Amino acid sequence: MVVEYSFRVKWGNTDAAGIVFYPNFYKWMDEATHEYFTAIAFPSSTLFVEQQVGTPLLEANCQFKSPLFFEDQVTVRSVVVELHQKVFKISHTFLRNEKLIAEGFEIRAWTSFKEKPKAYPIPDQVREKMMPKETLNR
Amino acid sequence: MVVEYSFRVKWGNTDAAGIVFYPNFYKWMDEATHEYFTAIAFPSSTLFVEQQVGTPLLEANCQFKSPLFFEDQVTVRSVVVELHQKVFKISHTFLRNEKLIAEGFEIRAWTSFKEKPKAYPIPDQVREKMMPKETLNR
Amino acid sequence: MVVEYSFRVKWGNTDAAGIVFYPNFYKWMDEATHEYFTAIAFPSSTLFVEQQVGTPLLEANCQFKSPLFFEDQVTVRSVVVELHQKVFKISHTFLRNEKLIAEGFEIRAWTSFKEKPKAYPIPDQVREKMMPKETLNR
Amino acid sequence: MVVEYSFRVKWGNTDAAGIVFYPNFYKWMDEATHEYFTAIAFPSSTLFVEQQVGTPLLEANCQFKSPLFFEDQVTVRSVVVELHQKVFKISHTFLRNEKLIAEGFEIRAWTSFKEKPKAYPIPDQVREKMMPKETLNR
Repeated sequence: MVVEYSFRVKWGNTDAAGIVFYPNFYKWMDEATHEYFTAIAFPSSTLFVEQQVGTPLLEANCQFKSPLFFEDQVTVRSVVVELHQKVFKISHTFLRNEKLIAEGFEIRAWTSFKEKPKAYPIPDQVREKMMPKETLNR
Repeated sequence: MVVEYSFRVKWGNTDAAGIVFYPNFYKWMDEATHEYFTAIAFPSSTLFVEQQVGTPLLEANCQFKSPLFFEDQVTVRSVVVELHQKVFKISHTFLRNEKLIAEGFEIRAWTSFKEKPKAYPIPDQVREKMMPKETLNR
Repeated sequence: MVVEYSFRVKWGNTDAAGIVFYPNFYKWMDEATHEYFTAIAFPSSTLFVEQQVGTPLLEANCQFKSPLFFEDQVTVRSVVVELHQKVFKISHTFLRNEKLIAEGFEIRAWTSFKEKPKAYPIPDQVREKMMPKETLNR
Repeated sequence: MVVEYSFRVKWGNTDAAGIVFYPNFYKWMDEATHEYFTAIAFPSSTLFVEQQVGTPLLEANCQFKSPLFFEDQVTVRSVVVELHQKVFKISHTFLRNEKLIAEGFEIRAWTSFKEKPKAYPIPDQVREKMMPKETLNR
């Protein structure tokens, strides 16, 4: 399942060079992942409030191909590309008018914050939404 | 008691006009207030971890006199100017080389986050540090 | 003219107390003002790129009535309440399900960044959009 | 040359799970790189103001080993690990009390913003500071 998240670059996202300050791309990847969970019917707000479950990062990467400017309209296409027992990798492709702007990924662990943060197996009903059965990476 | 907090303007604080994006001033006022609590020996990290006490905002204001630029060295002078039973007002003066850059204030409530956030009287040992007895605003 | 700007609270907007970190309200007021200029057909991106005109802050204020949480849906209603020769005041009302969350304002100066920042009279065609003629504050 | 940059985690860096919101690590890598340029006597503020030179990102990566909390004292150790004609790779190691917290890198291009952003060879006097001659990666 590919989920799209769209936004416009805000004034506060730019820096003195007139382009987007790069840590914003990671903020947008985080937002895109939350959109992804909402799209598969497991909104992270519900997971966090009801089960104290979050998905903290093990690694994040982004390659920047072209700068973004104030008020650019951007779409992020997000898809889970690896699905392990407790960990998943989600890729994010940034596009402006179908032109590639940046490509990134996040590796996240299914984690309970009830006590000390601890990773748990991703529940089956979530796994099934993340990836079609036949492509599961076991 | 006047507490000073110093910092340098970071690249990411600027916007496409080449000056500091204004919401950063409120971020710095928040940081200055935490510095203030550390300086009076009630660091807000300890208050929050041990007692689930925080000081959320009722109001914040800032007047901007002169723009700040990347790598400017800034000092914030913070002082409690009003001390009520559950609420205090702290003023923050931003200076660069003793030149006035901005003047702001925050009004905050002493609040327990143990359950639903609820305001409580500021403890006496904190009040005594915030203001000399003779100037207490009762 | 009243302009509405809607958004959802992002995970990154929260702090360890579980509520929105307050400087985000000023970031959202800034975003709402840019939405306002887009709505009156003078998008600030065009003003900045074509004329090096921006509207830096002289003062900003916000009163916080009720906390915001992750994934709350928020609407900001923005209206120019004072219109002077070079300066305007825009008020921003934050609502969640029609409940008042916060009330703020910004005072901004029409400013050219061509050389050293300098305030200029707000052009008539912009003034006319900001306020109906009969209520102009001359 | 290894450059150290130290800071304390701010209240506003945390999220509702009580740990640091991960895009802040990239903001801190950016700050550490600017500290690096200051330490080798080419402060990026001077480069940008006098020559309109910046070092925008081609790629950034971070692996997160252990969460950071409010008021943690953190040190980032930064060193240039690859030095190409127009591009360099700088690694950043995050430590708290000598415990490894995160490991990241940035790949940046020496870029003029005089007109449309364009990469240029890194000047020799900068190269010499970045890496001892015998280890240059040609």
